[in-house]
Amino acid sequence: RCHQRSVAMLDIPFPSFCAFLGSLGVLIVALVGTWCQHWRGGFSLDGGSRTFNWHPVLMVAGLVVLYGAAALVYRIPNTWSGPKLPWKLLHGGLALGAFVLTVLGLAAVFRFHNSNGTPNMYSLHSWMGLATVLLFSCQWAAGFGAFLLPWAPAWLRQLYKPIHVFFGSSILMLSVASCVSGINEKLFFSLKNGTTQYKLLPAEAVFANSLGMLILLFGVLVVGALARPSWKRLDSDSLDSRQVL
Amino acid sequence: RCHQRSVAMLDIPFPSFCAFLGSLGVLIVALVGTWCQHWRGGFSLDGGSRTFNWHPVLMVAGLVVLYGAAALVYRIPNTWSGPKLPWKLLHGGLALGAFVLTVLGLAAVFRFHNSNGTPNMYSLHSWMGLATVLLFSCQWAAGFGAFLLPWAPAWLRQLYKPIHVFFGSSILMLSVASCVSGINEKLFFSLKNGTTQYKLLPAEAVFANSLGMLILLFGVLVVGALARPSWKRLDSDSLDSRQVL
Repeated sequence: RCHQRSVAMLDIPFPSFCAFLGSLGVLIVALVGTWCQHWRGGFSLDGGSRTFNWHPVLMVAGLVVLYGAAALVYRIPNTWSGPKLPWKLLHGGLALGAFVLTVLGLAAVFRFHNSNGTPNMYSLHSWMGLATVLLFSCQWAAGFGAFLLPWAPAWLRQLYKPIHVFFGSSILMLSVASCVSGINEKLFFSLKNGTTQYKLLPAEAVFANSLGMLILLFGVLVVGALARPSWKRLDSDSLDSRQVL
Repeated sequence: RCHQRSVAMLDIPFPSFCAFLGSLGVLIVALVGTWCQHWRGGFSLDGGSRTFNWHPVLMVAGLVVLYGAAALVYRIPNTWSGPKLPWKLLHGGLALGAFVLTVLGLAAVFRFHNSNGTPNMYSLHSWMGLATVLLFSCQWAAGFGAFLLPWAPAWLRQLYKPIHVFFGSSILMLSVASCVSGINEKLFFSLKNGTTQYKLLPAEAVFANSLGMLILLFGVLVVGALARPSWKRLDSDSLDSRQVL
């Protein structure tokens, strides 16, 4: 009775979840853009701090939001039957889009550092960010080679699939951790004078901290959705489904 | 033939995985202790920076390593049959130990801030860290109420279990993100003079960056192990197993 209704309430339909997640993703990109536009001086390509501002926007849009969308393609029930190729192309295409934004986001920060004589790749943020991007590039190339090239043997696809799935979630976790550490470090860099010191929690700090919390929420929801058994296609994790068979 | 051997190689036995993960956990705690002892002046309870040093050690030991051990208890095949109560007590006891270390770790940083007139709870690191600890305390209390109190009804346990499982992985992701952002911010605070500037990548920076990367590896491995279908008990995710039944 009562508890059956409660159980049914927990059984969120995938389309509603996607609508919420999509809105959250759009909101996150809008907020990171607003932060850079309103408090950090906007955008340009001149090599100064307004060039840097492309970095957070492109990383969050590519490596979190668009990546999350790509990761969830195979949770759409329509993908579970019929021809697979269109869905593979959508999954690979979204991931490629995410990768292009990511590379542009990296180019923005390297250009800013190089124009200002700042060393590259010293902080933990940069180490984990670059590791994330390198793993993502391997993931895309290996996914293309194993799943899109028509001559890849079935045993290779079967072997590689659980690895691709594992790294799919792992890369998203790393990218979320990279984003929040980057926002944290940027606020310490930017907010250090007088009444706008980070520790006095000015409006910009509340805004960007909240943005970081929303990015964490987005990452947790995507990884949770990927792990949810009832949203997986039946034949998925074929290597790992002995207990089911 | 060849590919069957490759598939078998991927099928890592759970005990070997645990031995590796346990060693990695011990190494991580030893490294964070070494960092604080060797470069940050060691430990004390006087309210100064040597009191702060308890914060990273206790957070990493509690909210990452011991928490990870607690999370993996139900992946031990011995827990899948026979009386459940001893395993529940082990799971809840390890989680309680993790929670105690976490609270002590919070106390260390609040005492340091208060002794030095530094505001609390302004950085994104502190926001996500506190959110993680609050979620963990709700998770422990709700888990105790639903699974350890003998009069909790079966429908409540069944209803709450997938929620507990989801938050179990999510809290670990948040705690790993909190740890790496904390290490990143501590290095910016501490390494800012002359030849020991963070951007010149002195030995301490390489050491603590590597520690951060190992914490990420630990978190990704635990979340991946929790999600691995063949390491789950058959009756798990009962709410979510319609596709299997």
